[in-house]
Amino acid sequence: MKDLNIGLFGFGTVGTGIYKVLERTRNTHASIRRICVRSLAKKRSVDVPSDILTDNPDDIFSDTAIDLVVEVIDDAEASYRIVSEALRRGLPVVSGNKAMIARHLPELIELQRRHNTALLYDASACGSIPVIRNLEEYYDNDLLLEVKGILNGSSNYILSRVFDHGEDYAEALAKAQRLGFAEADPSFDIKGFDSLFKLVIITIHALGVYVNPADVFAYGIASISDFDIRYAREKGAKIKLVAQVVKLDDDRFTLFVMPEFVVPGKYIYSVDDEYNGVVIRGECYDRQFMFGKGAGSLPTASSILSDVTARHHDYRYEYKKMSYDQRPVYTDDVTLRVYIRHREQTLPDGVVFTKITESYVSENGCYTVGDISLATLRANRTLLDNPDIFICNFPRFFLDLD
Amino acid sequence: MKDLNIGLFGFGTVGTGIYKVLERTRNTHASIRRICVRSLAKKRSVDVPSDILTDNPDDIFSDTAIDLVVEVIDDAEASYRIVSEALRRGLPVVSGNKAMIARHLPELIELQRRHNTALLYDASACGSIPVIRNLEEYYDNDLLLEVKGILNGSSNYILSRVFDHGEDYAEALAKAQRLGFAEADPSFDIKGFDSLFKLVIITIHALGVYVNPADVFAYGIASISDFDIRYAREKGAKIKLVAQVVKLDDDRFTLFVMPEFVVPGKYIYSVDDEYNGVVIRGECYDRQFMFGKGAGSLPTASSILSDVTARHHDYRYEYKKMSYDQRPVYTDDVTLRVYIRHREQTLPDGVVFTKITESYVSENGCYTVGDISLATLRANRTLLDNPDIFICNFPRFFLDLD
Repeated sequence: MKDLNIGLFGFGTVGTGIYKVLERTRNTHASIRRICVRSLAKKRSVDVPSDILTDNPDDIFSDTAIDLVVEVIDDAEASYRIVSEALRRGLPVVSGNKAMIARHLPELIELQRRHNTALLYDASACGSIPVIRNLEEYYDNDLLLEVKGILNGSSNYILSRVFDHGEDYAEALAKAQRLGFAEADPSFDIKGFDSLFKLVIITIHALGVYVNPADVFAYGIASISDFDIRYAREKGAKIKLVAQVVKLDDDRFTLFVMPEFVVPGKYIYSVDDEYNGVVIRGECYDRQFMFGKGAGSLPTASSILSDVTARHHDYRYEYKKMSYDQRPVYTDDVTLRVYIRHREQTLPDGVVFTKITESYVSENGCYTVGDISLATLRANRTLLDNPDIFICNFPRFFLDLD
Repeated sequence: MKDLNIGLFGFGTVGTGIYKVLERTRNTHASIRRICVRSLAKKRSVDVPSDILTDNPDDIFSDTAIDLVVEVIDDAEASYRIVSEALRRGLPVVSGNKAMIARHLPELIELQRRHNTALLYDASACGSIPVIRNLEEYYDNDLLLEVKGILNGSSNYILSRVFDHGEDYAEALAKAQRLGFAEADPSFDIKGFDSLFKLVIITIHALGVYVNPADVFAYGIASISDFDIRYAREKGAKIKLVAQVVKLDDDRFTLFVMPEFVVPGKYIYSVDDEYNGVVIRGECYDRQFMFGKGAGSLPTASSILSDVTARHHDYRYEYKKMSYDQRPVYTDDVTLRVYIRHREQTLPDGVVFTKITESYVSENGCYTVGDISLATLRANRTLLDNPDIFICNFPRFFLDLD
C-alpha cells in the first residue's frame, strides 16, 4: 500500500495537533504534503518547512500527488466550499467541521456517490470517541433504540465547575474560556448548537434518517441561574446538557438537545469536566457506554488520524441504514416533563403545559413543572431565548423508562 | 445485496439468542437455513421447524446455498474442527469461542489468507462491547499504550456480590451459578482462563502480536478469602479480576491476568455485576472507556449478529498491525507490586520478592507486600494454585502511572 499524501486545510489547534501526532507515529503511512492557511504571516506554534505552507487552495487541489484532503478550519462556510470542491474533484476528504456537515449532509452524501469518493468525519462528533463508525458498522441492525449523551465538552466543563466545585456560572464560563475549552464567543457551545450538529450527524448513522438542524429543538445552558442550580441540588441531581435521539416505536423517533436533571447511578452522571460520554441502548445489548475526551487538540487530531488511516484502506461510510426498507420517521409529537423557571410575566402565552405537577411563585423567581409537548416548545423556541427563562428536562418521562 | 443464508452450529444459550434476535430484526438480510446440534432428541426452549435441525455437519458444509457459518458451541475442540473445516472450504465463519480462537489464532489467520475467506469473532471478547473491531479499525495507529479491563462477567458478578453486597464468596459463587452467570464448573471463569483467552485475542488486534496463552501469567479469584477481602476493604479498595496488555516502551509490552486492588475514581471501579468494562489508553486521546454487558444470551447474540451484518458487506479483519515494520516484543521482565497472602510454610521457595514493603504474620494468615518480577510469578505458576495462597496486584506500580 502506498503512503497517503495529505493536503491539509487549517493549521490551528487541531491542525497543529495532527502535525504533531503524525511526527510521533511510526506506522501511519501518511504525511502532510501541503498546508493551506488563511494567513502566511501568522506566527505558528510549530515549526514547519516554509515551502509546505500556502494560502492558495489551488496549490492543494491541482497537486496531483495529493490523494487526501484533511479539512480542519473553523469557518463553516469556507469549510463547505473546500470540502465540496474536493469531492467534486473526486478527492477523498476527512473533516471535523460538525456545523458544516450537519447542515449539508444530504448534498455531501450525494457528492460522494456521484464522484465515487469518500468523506469521513468521525472527529466531528465526540472527538476521540468512535461513535459514528460504531453506529455505522457495529450497531447496524434495527434494534438500536436510543443514543443519548453529553456531546459538548465546553458546557460540560462549565456545569462540572458549578455542580462539583461550587463555582458560580459566570466564574466557570470565564475559566473555561481561559483554558481554551470554550470559544471567545461561547454561544455555539452553551446555546446547544454544537451538541445539535453532532446529534444530527449521529442520527443519520444511528437510524439512517437526516433531520435538518433547523427542525430540531435545541436549548442550552446560557440562561441557567443559581435558582435552577439550587433546585437541582435539592433534588439530588446535577444538570447536564444532554443530546438524545430516541425511537418511540418501530415507526417514529424524536430528537432534541436540552439541559436535563441527571441523578447518581446514571452513566452520564459521572461524565465530568471536558469529557464526553455516550450511551447507546439497544433491544438486545441493553446499554453500552462510551466515554472519552471530547475535545482538545490531540484527542481530536487522533480521531482525524483514525479516519486518515481508514482511508488508507479505502474505507467509506456506506450509509447502509438510509437504504433500509422501513425507516422510522421524525416526530416532535411527544410529551416531555420539564421544569421551566420564569417570572410571572415572562412565560410566553403559547407555552402551555398539558398538565402541571408543581408550581412555585416567589419574588426570587417562579417555576412550573409539568408535561408539555416538544412541538409546543419548538413553536415557541425564539421566545424562550430569555435570561429570565430556563428549561430543564426530567429524563425518560415520555418513555416510562428509568 | 443478497440475503445471507446461515448454517448455525450450536443451539444452546447463544444459538437460541441468535434465532430470537433474527426473528425480531427487520433489516438484517440474513436467515438461518440449517442448525447443526449434537442431539436431535434434546428438548429446545425455542420452536424451530424440525427440518432445519440436523446432527450432521455435512448437511451444512455441503449445502451450496449456505454462505456463512456461525459457530456458537461450547466445546473448543469441536469448535476448532468445524471452524477450520469451514475456512478450508472457503466458507466465511463467525465464531464466539474464545478458547479455540486464542489457542489457534495464527493457524486461523493463515487459513483465512490461504482460502481467501474471513473469520470474525467480535463476540469472543467482551460480548456486546465492540472492542476487537475498534482496536482493528479505529485505534490503528501505533500510539496505543494499553488495553485494560474486566473481561469476565461471572467472576465480576461474584466479586460484586462480595464487595457491594457483603455476601461471602461461596454464597456469591452459588448465586452466580443459579443465575447462569457461572458454569457448573466455574474454573474457566474464576481461574482467569476466560479473561486470558480474551486478552490474547485483544492483544493481536491491539499490538499486532500473537502471544500463546500458555506463555501468559493468568491468576484468578478461586482462592480469595475473607482475609483478603478485609485487607482490600481496609485500603478502601475493591478487588477486581483485571486483564491487561501494556506497552512498556516503543519496543516492549507485557500482559497478564490478575486480581487487582481497584480504588474509587478508577473507571473500572464502577464496573459491577455481570458487566464488562475496557479502558483503552493512547498517547493522544488519553483514556477511553467502553462499558456494557459482557455475557448473556441476547447481548452475545447481538454481537454475533453485528459480525453477520459485517459479512453482508464482506468485512474481514485485515490484521493490519501484524504487518507493521516495528512491532513491540512480549516480555515478562517487569516488576509488579503485589500482595500475597500465604501461610508461613506455603509460599514456594522460588517466589522471591526483590523488595518487601509490608509483611504481616498471624495465626489467621500472613501476607507479604512487595516487588516481584512477573517472570518469577510465571516460573512458579503451578505452585501458586493453592487455597492457602492469594495474589493481588497493586496497579500501575511498574509504570509509575496513576
